[in-house]
Amino acid sequence: MNLSEIVNWRYATKAMTGGIVTDGKVKAILNATLLCPTSSGLQPFHVILISSKELKEKIKAIAMHQPVIEQLSHLMVFAAWDSYTKERVNQHFTYLNKQRNMPDSGTDGYRKMLLSLFEKQTPEQHFNHAAKQSYIGLGFALIAAANEQVDSTPMEGFNAEQLDTLLELKKQGLKSTAILALGYRDVANDWLVKLKKVRRPMSEFVTVIK
Amino acid sequence: MNLSEIVNWRYATKAMTGGIVTDGKVKAILNATLLCPTSSGLQPFHVILISSKELKEKIKAIAMHQPVIEQLSHLMVFAAWDSYTKERVNQHFTYLNKQRNMPDSGTDGYRKMLLSLFEKQTPEQHFNHAAKQSYIGLGFALIAAANEQVDSTPMEGFNAEQLDTLLELKKQGLKSTAILALGYRDVANDWLVKLKKVRRPMSEFVTVIK
Repeated sequence: MNLSEIVNWRYATKAMTGGIVTDGKVKAILNATLLCPTSSGLQPFHVILISSKELKEKIKAIAMHQPVIEQLSHLMVFAAWDSYTKERVNQHFTYLNKQRNMPDSGTDGYRKMLLSLFEKQTPEQHFNHAAKQSYIGLGFALIAAANEQVDSTPMEGFNAEQLDTLLELKKQGLKSTAILALGYRDVANDWLVKLKKVRRPMSEFVTVIK
Repeated sequence: MNLSEIVNWRYATKAMTGGIVTDGKVKAILNATLLCPTSSGLQPFHVILISSKELKEKIKAIAMHQPVIEQLSHLMVFAAWDSYTKERVNQHFTYLNKQRNMPDSGTDGYRKMLLSLFEKQTPEQHFNHAAKQSYIGLGFALIAAANEQVDSTPMEGFNAEQLDTLLELKKQGLKSTAILALGYRDVANDWLVKLKKVRRPMSEFVTVIK
């Protein structure tokens, strides 16, 4: 499939067969997600990849009992940094410069500018910003899954606080933002697969200024 | 290029040649963006596609004078709904049901649940939520551009209020969230193209729970 076919083939799968996605395909999806761009390259989010049956059952209970959560193969939980701490920002630039064999001081100007910007903001602003970056990753994961002919369901309908507690995210300085089911569509039982994909007309989505 | 090559080839282009991206390629990028999923399918964002030289100059002035803004071919401005109004939500479901030849009442339960949820939230919460959806679109646009071998630069370093005023977004109930330069890399003058793409090791990006 070419990209146009891929994004048309993808839909928010409502019923899955329980079929297992191979490690190779999961790896390809994670790789694409890792390579998404983020603001200043900080990568302020983390992915928790879940295939544990027990955990899926617990998550289903705090995610509006969506049946797909028990039918999926792997669940990706996107979790964003709860704040941009000095440590996190400094660690990023130190790692970046080491990887590029550059002196750590080379990015000092930019790093200090960023730190002073973050200092003026609240943790809530930090998290909102980091959460948006995690959605770029979500976009990459959605396309990468479809490219592997793996179905997926992006979901926000879960109790984030309860999920954070369940996965012990708080002590890692993380808060869940979205979850993505990976698996295979159950065509016979999925009410959505039969329905037309609907989007606004392009003319109402885009304003062109030449 | 396959998807792995595409996401590796992509980088945040810092200098562009001024070369023009064809209408066909721009259309393919917009099409993929339109097809990204959004929460409840509401598509709470809009794209302003700019190729006007005059407007690019004005935007450069409120976007930290980033040179790439004058060197790009097309600029995509992502603008999210400033709030989820009753009208917007109702309009979406009416359109959806019409497109699917379904009775408009068929989605009433879900629609009412959504409206009552939004009613409990502030416009700021609405905008933060809509802004995240626009970042899924940004993710789709980034991959679609690279798939067309079009370079791109996602940017947040601009004065959103000034951009909203310049593009008269407020009266459309929109607020800019991110901008994406489309064009062609100027390899000789781009300091970033020569540097190694750095990401955290996969083991630090993903936690696996089997």
